[in-house]
Amino acid sequence: MTDAAGTDTRPAPQAGDQYVQSLARGLAVIRAFDADRPVMTLTEVASRTGLTRATARRFLHTLVELGYVRTDGKTFALTAKVLQLGYAYLSGLSLPQLAQPHLEELSLKLGESTSAAVLDGTDIAYIARVTSRRIMTVGITVGTRFPAYATSMGRVLLAYLPPADLKAYLASAEVRPLTPRALGSVDQLVAVLDRVRAQGWCLLNQELELGLMSVAAPVYDGAKVVAAVNVSLQAQSVEAKPDPQAYLASVAQEIVATAKLISADLTARG
Amino acid sequence: MTDAAGTDTRPAPQAGDQYVQSLARGLAVIRAFDADRPVMTLTEVASRTGLTRATARRFLHTLVELGYVRTDGKTFALTAKVLQLGYAYLSGLSLPQLAQPHLEELSLKLGESTSAAVLDGTDIAYIARVTSRRIMTVGITVGTRFPAYATSMGRVLLAYLPPADLKAYLASAEVRPLTPRALGSVDQLVAVLDRVRAQGWCLLNQELELGLMSVAAPVYDGAKVVAAVNVSLQAQSVEAKPDPQAYLASVAQEIVATAKLISADLTARG
Repeated sequence: MTDAAGTDTRPAPQAGDQYVQSLARGLAVIRAFDADRPVMTLTEVASRTGLTRATARRFLHTLVELGYVRTDGKTFALTAKVLQLGYAYLSGLSLPQLAQPHLEELSLKLGESTSAAVLDGTDIAYIARVTSRRIMTVGITVGTRFPAYATSMGRVLLAYLPPADLKAYLASAEVRPLTPRALGSVDQLVAVLDRVRAQGWCLLNQELELGLMSVAAPVYDGAKVVAAVNVSLQAQSVEAKPDPQAYLASVAQEIVATAKLISADLTARG
Repeated sequence: MTDAAGTDTRPAPQAGDQYVQSLARGLAVIRAFDADRPVMTLTEVASRTGLTRATARRFLHTLVELGYVRTDGKTFALTAKVLQLGYAYLSGLSLPQLAQPHLEELSLKLGESTSAAVLDGTDIAYIARVTSRRIMTVGITVGTRFPAYATSMGRVLLAYLPPADLKAYLASAEVRPLTPRALGSVDQLVAVLDRVRAQGWCLLNQELELGLMSVAAPVYDGAKVVAAVNVSLQAQSVEAKPDPQAYLASVAQEIVATAKLISADLTARG
């Protein structure tokens, strides 16, 4: 159990418990650093993690000794070594390597950015991205996260969840519109997911950021959807096409075809 | 102290020690997974980390409970949640956000891929990348690592190290040529680093991978070099230019100019 800051909020485990509380706390210390707090004092780390100063100090010093945190004596910050942890996951995944050339080909063909993401809890996490031009105000890189319901790739991943998992997601989902054009209720989301499943792809129209559209399709490993890929489009340039609907349909065909190529590579690899 | 697999090889700490061994061991369990071993049994994790089966089981179960590892009962694999750890570092760094638009502009202008990296121990770690076309056999993504001496960005970062740090690096460096064209001794590396410092940029000619060239320049935060940026080039297409030397000189000018723009943004931000 963790709260919003990733702090371990469980009661202290009993002796003989299989749960290593020190590991949970140490990981919470790493995750206490973020864009708003890249550099913190011991007091700030303690306050953000709910640990005592003495405990926070031991974890910080251990992380300094291991090279994951640096300090000037007063403040603490993460080092690039922390990337090795995320890289342990990425390098073990065959999907980013398999997807990359297909995403690059589609990006070149359409002149637009393409991405791949997986579901991580209620968020999507980007695992590959090919940038053609910058159309989002938010920078996206591998590891970037968004709420699944607010993105085209997330809706694809939700639509193809096993029914029990989708039911659990919907039971606890908070659907908060991020733009004035975004859907704002679980019922609306359910209807959208039904449509995604029926047509095999998802169009998102300025629901994550005004001015931004995207089209996503599912990537299969055998019979199971394991990731989604998408193309980002500028709403203005889509609307400037002679026939915007026909253009979007052609992009949908392209992303579905790309997803099929990646699925074939992934399934063949086994 | 960690060995090649990232395992904690220190003697068990004494009571009252500031060092939290459980955290070190837990992080070593995460890093035991890699491209060669993305899925492991308990026995394999124990053997790779040097932990007993009972200890490895406790750490794996804790990571499963925290959502960083998934298991089918027999085997274990990292989940996308591990990316959140690396993302804690990246999102706290202003550099990737500041560098990205400048790297994209240069990538568009030259039609080549551009990257940014920082030094992490004796390796460089990629923190931003804009792909134009695929010219390397090795896929590069944020978090990818290479030995510093074998890359253009690494040589820039080494060249501008404080003298004492460079001396320590050179004293323990193992300079192993990765291609037949690569330098193979510390003395040769020292001469190259002197040249990099004198000219303010570094050209690497097929020393990381045959067929691949790159040109890198330093990024400053105030008076201190904190990162390097580069452009990747296909050796064949450089050689096909009417005047390859003049072309490389113009690319060097471009990457130095881009590095200066990023440095100005970074220094202004303070």
